[in-house]
Amino acid sequence: MTALKQKKDKMQSPLDILSERMATDMDAVNAMIVTHMQSDVALIPTLASYLIAAGGKRVRPLLTLASTALFDGDMTRAHRLAAAVEFIHTATLLHDDVVDDSNQRRGKDSANIVFGNEASVLVGDFLFSRAFQLMVADGSLDVLRILSNASAIIAEGEVKQLSTQNNLETTMDDYRKVIEGKTASLFAAACEVGPIIAEQDIKIVKALSDYGMALGMAFQIVDDVLDYDADRLKLGKDIGDDFREGKMTVPILFALEKASPQEHDFWTRTLGERNQNEDDFGRAQNLIIEHDGLNKGLVMAQEYGNQAINALRLVPNSDIKEILINIIQFIIHRDH
Amino acid sequence: MTALKQKKDKMQSPLDILSERMATDMDAVNAMIVTHMQSDVALIPTLASYLIAAGGKRVRPLLTLASTALFDGDMTRAHRLAAAVEFIHTATLLHDDVVDDSNQRRGKDSANIVFGNEASVLVGDFLFSRAFQLMVADGSLDVLRILSNASAIIAEGEVKQLSTQNNLETTMDDYRKVIEGKTASLFAAACEVGPIIAEQDIKIVKALSDYGMALGMAFQIVDDVLDYDADRLKLGKDIGDDFREGKMTVPILFALEKASPQEHDFWTRTLGERNQNEDDFGRAQNLIIEHDGLNKGLVMAQEYGNQAINALRLVPNSDIKEILINIIQFIIHRDH
Repeated sequence: MTALKQKKDKMQSPLDILSERMATDMDAVNAMIVTHMQSDVALIPTLASYLIAAGGKRVRPLLTLASTALFDGDMTRAHRLAAAVEFIHTATLLHDDVVDDSNQRRGKDSANIVFGNEASVLVGDFLFSRAFQLMVADGSLDVLRILSNASAIIAEGEVKQLSTQNNLETTMDDYRKVIEGKTASLFAAACEVGPIIAEQDIKIVKALSDYGMALGMAFQIVDDVLDYDADRLKLGKDIGDDFREGKMTVPILFALEKASPQEHDFWTRTLGERNQNEDDFGRAQNLIIEHDGLNKGLVMAQEYGNQAINALRLVPNSDIKEILINIIQFIIHRDH
Repeated sequence: MTALKQKKDKMQSPLDILSERMATDMDAVNAMIVTHMQSDVALIPTLASYLIAAGGKRVRPLLTLASTALFDGDMTRAHRLAAAVEFIHTATLLHDDVVDDSNQRRGKDSANIVFGNEASVLVGDFLFSRAFQLMVADGSLDVLRILSNASAIIAEGEVKQLSTQNNLETTMDDYRKVIEGKTASLFAAACEVGPIIAEQDIKIVKALSDYGMALGMAFQIVDDVLDYDADRLKLGKDIGDDFREGKMTVPILFALEKASPQEHDFWTRTLGERNQNEDDFGRAQNLIIEHDGLNKGLVMAQEYGNQAINALRLVPNSDIKEILINIIQFIIHRDH
């Protein structure tokens, strides 16, 4: 191995390595995405490509590709189904931004700001329908079952999040259910599709589903921790969105567990009543650090990371399996 | 026939007759709807049942039941798929009311007013997912294809409607595409499911799809005419919503065709710029009547009605076929 290659490997994250390994397949997925977001109604491809061109890491379709390649499955089927997974994800992003009244997504003005809430809702519906058309074209009822179940669970998670927002009675169990629904279920489905395509037995299918579920839990917990992490500001990233919206995420729940009556009043005002002034986010960060909320969150993420590793034990060793394992630690220790 | 029975027949619309004929099946559909809108997340059944309990004529699931019974198809499958059709319809209503910023639906405050736009968007997504879960449980890829295609076309129609709203360049052809998408495609799909269940040959499947499509076009055109019909006020119904929102519907398009330059300025101000005062709706109604916009709309609806009748020529005569034909005239001549 040359020094240059070593340096490159050091700089590359396991997600980058997987993207590179799957580059040809990912190109095929992207082509599939572009083809299937077309419509005679010009606003649809305009809005969809605005969001999709903004990038994002394409984690979910990559997981579908990897979980298919892991078992030498038919990659042509994986391309189509990875595009379906990304369409479901994109549809939920469009709807989330309307629901959260967001104004930024992937470093740009979000689609609801540029094109309006109305168009975001309807183009989300369109992409969601397209996802099912892609699955029907593939023709596997198992895949349709997995992704229609995941879609229902995503919506349930999002509604539950709405019910727990600004609600200081929210428990850690409520939180787990919210993120299992809104995030982890699609990770699980994205990983489950591969062994289904490759006609693996049910234990292997379950192993990949468990891996995706645990990975998705870790991913969302870290995301929620990072939204309070001051170091992230140095990377030019926004923080504090969850606090402003009164979302009951893991750092808050750990801080609430140990809150003095006075602190509880602070949380009630800022999160429960969403009555916030400009110093409040700083105080929230301090209280979370004081009660070790970020570290406890990362420990929880690591527990899910360990579950994800365990889930892969049944899967024969291979370089792709190694990448899937490395992705777990990368996701937990990422800083953006 | 007794005098009493004759009187009852006279009072009953063909939709009422179909509802009565299909009462046991409709009960099964309603039970299916109630079962499948359940969720551990309490807000979901609360919101869904708020809208579903408000009634509505259940035209689409009735069409699925009738088009199955017409060919002696398996009614148990029809119950499940009729519920799926109604879930897709309900999801689009929830999203429409958010998009149109409506405050009334089926004579009550609309769900977005009572539960918020956020919950309406997400519960719509949930019901849409549930529809696909029901279809997967049925297991017919043909049905999944028909209803995923219809869902994509509905969303396209809605986005196209958004693009034509407040746009005086909208053509009659644009309008036809909008209503074909937003309304007629689901009528077509609802009718197509029956002969698919009953394993009819492709000509019969196409006949029912054509019937549903033409019926849906007539239905929506009449709906759009009625929104300018002063007689409807006597029935305690609201009118003028389309005008207030600047929707380019058939009465407007006929009035625009014949508009003087001065009238064109009026439409530009009221619909294009949505700058309206309280006298404007009355003036709009007068201009439409002057240019025969309502009658021309009804003539157009009747043309689709004739297409619907023709579409059924291939279908063997039966009492259900007769009801389906009677429904066409009822829909065109309804006053609410």
